[in-house]
Amino acid sequence: MTTMRDVAEHAGVSIATVSFVINNTKPVTQATRARIEASMEALGYRPNAVARALASRRTRVLALAYPALDHRLGGSGMEFMIAAARRAGEHGYHLMMWPGTNDGREMTDLLGQRMVDGVILMEVQLDDPRVRPLQASKTPYALIGRTADPSDSLHVDIDFEQTVTDAVRHLYDLGHRRIVLVTGTQVSESYYNYGPYVRTERAFVDVTARLGLEPVIVASGHDAGAGRELAQRLRTEQPDATAVVLLNEFAAIGLLIGLHHQQLRVPDDLSIVSMVTSDEMASLAEPTLTIMRSPGTELGELAVEHLVRQMTTGQRPDPVLLPSILVPGESTSPPPRTPIGRR
Amino acid sequence: MTTMRDVAEHAGVSIATVSFVINNTKPVTQATRARIEASMEALGYRPNAVARALASRRTRVLALAYPALDHRLGGSGMEFMIAAARRAGEHGYHLMMWPGTNDGREMTDLLGQRMVDGVILMEVQLDDPRVRPLQASKTPYALIGRTADPSDSLHVDIDFEQTVTDAVRHLYDLGHRRIVLVTGTQVSESYYNYGPYVRTERAFVDVTARLGLEPVIVASGHDAGAGRELAQRLRTEQPDATAVVLLNEFAAIGLLIGLHHQQLRVPDDLSIVSMVTSDEMASLAEPTLTIMRSPGTELGELAVEHLVRQMTTGQRPDPVLLPSILVPGESTSPPPRTPIGRR
Repeated sequence: MTTMRDVAEHAGVSIATVSFVINNTKPVTQATRARIEASMEALGYRPNAVARALASRRTRVLALAYPALDHRLGGSGMEFMIAAARRAGEHGYHLMMWPGTNDGREMTDLLGQRMVDGVILMEVQLDDPRVRPLQASKTPYALIGRTADPSDSLHVDIDFEQTVTDAVRHLYDLGHRRIVLVTGTQVSESYYNYGPYVRTERAFVDVTARLGLEPVIVASGHDAGAGRELAQRLRTEQPDATAVVLLNEFAAIGLLIGLHHQQLRVPDDLSIVSMVTSDEMASLAEPTLTIMRSPGTELGELAVEHLVRQMTTGQRPDPVLLPSILVPGESTSPPPRTPIGRR
Repeated sequence: MTTMRDVAEHAGVSIATVSFVINNTKPVTQATRARIEASMEALGYRPNAVARALASRRTRVLALAYPALDHRLGGSGMEFMIAAARRAGEHGYHLMMWPGTNDGREMTDLLGQRMVDGVILMEVQLDDPRVRPLQASKTPYALIGRTADPSDSLHVDIDFEQTVTDAVRHLYDLGHRRIVLVTGTQVSESYYNYGPYVRTERAFVDVTARLGLEPVIVASGHDAGAGRELAQRLRTEQPDATAVVLLNEFAAIGLLIGLHHQQLRVPDDLSIVSMVTSDEMASLAEPTLTIMRSPGTELGELAVEHLVRQMTTGQRPDPVLLPSILVPGESTSPPPRTPIGRR
């Protein structure tokens, strides 16, 4: 294997000079740099990343702290990770997966080992125990999601407030006046602390108030079975409902199926909008779901861009909220004359 | 930040002795080790992973070369990665995501940087350009999937041969005698080189021959739209078909939907089995799909176990083929008296 010594001999310079070029630790003349790079190319030399990391104090690695809790917020976890890894690669970084526990102590341990130049946190909780160790360590970080007080963290998030507002307005414009929001079940404490649900619910209360509608929020689990089960409950619990907005695509499809089992038709008898959903998931439903499309890829790319900019300029870019765009499918229409619960 | 020097002073030993304990490079008495570890605990010392990597020549990092090609072989990519990351963590390793290009040269570059102790390759092609650089570098690796000649690589794979054989037998036992296999479209060259399709097709030809059936193989794209479109073609192209086995869960659900649009019922008019599918995807269909369940989690754990065993013992564990178990849903039944294409 070619060493720095081989390169130095080939280029006719000292090992130290080769090190300066590789690690960017001291300026070197253009001519010398060119000669060293030519020698590296000729000999097929590749810098030992570990030695380089030690010398330059940069590992060129970013940690991706992936979610432990299975909130199933749109199946775009993979889409996000791959987009982030690809964008990181374009900037010369690798992503390292950090364990998915929402644990401040584990974060402290990992940061102490100094393996990474920056951290991306996925599935941020409103009160997230991983954030304080990050701030204390001075490691640059980006949050995917927002804590309750996002003012001093670099964050990228889906604009849940705008998304649910757009979904409700779409239904209001079609003529709906009894719209139900379905969010994650409240039996688990983690959901009280989960930004997407809390933000969506608050914004739903706001937009319905502005439109003079009653803010009806119903809990459901986050799988197809829960959606099917919801179809049974809806008629009796919300007899006047003519439209439903769901925060979980599996529950949305389950709801569709459950309604079919009761010989009810979507959208004729009930309109459905699924938030934070992918085009692929929308196409698995019959009729195809009207969705607020999950921006998984853009989130992944933006998270990396923001973190890299922070690391290179030393300045925090402004937080970014990404919209979840309405993609009309076949699951919404004007409301029926009589709601399904009143027949 | 606590340094090795601080620990050495606290424990009353030399820095070199502390280094021996941290990096496991030289034996140290039990008493001395205990004293040093107590000092580390008391001072909150965490070894600098980079320095440790350089000293011990072990980075404690495994690379996960994730798929670039979007074959959509069961949505279990995320399930696999998270299971692998979790199991790696239990063994004291981190996973680093390596870019998803199926490129030998990129693999050579990455290996040359010596950032990782081992590599896991996902989505292995029959003739995979990433394998030779791995063998040449002597870096331990595990293949998820098999090349055409798997005899000298450590691999973990789904047993596609057994899976399709079990699927066909299930249908044969229900009375089906005209079974169609649907695999990825052959318009793209990458699919000719794609183990899961090639192995499944070969085994399908074998099992149908053994059962005295005709081996009918049909191409379809790998999304719901392609499945819906297949529903139209099937009647005219395969008029005697009474059962379909699909290698893509999105196409399977699309096929279900397409058949509904023609007022055909599953399983009454046509039985469907979806291979390498998750329980969640099965539940999104109506009726729920009968599946050969994708072992994504087990694959991820096994890949790491095998690689770690190889790295610690220096011996290659035997390859492992994991079955994809039949999970009956509601999409298979005895065949109709008259196939849909003959009515």
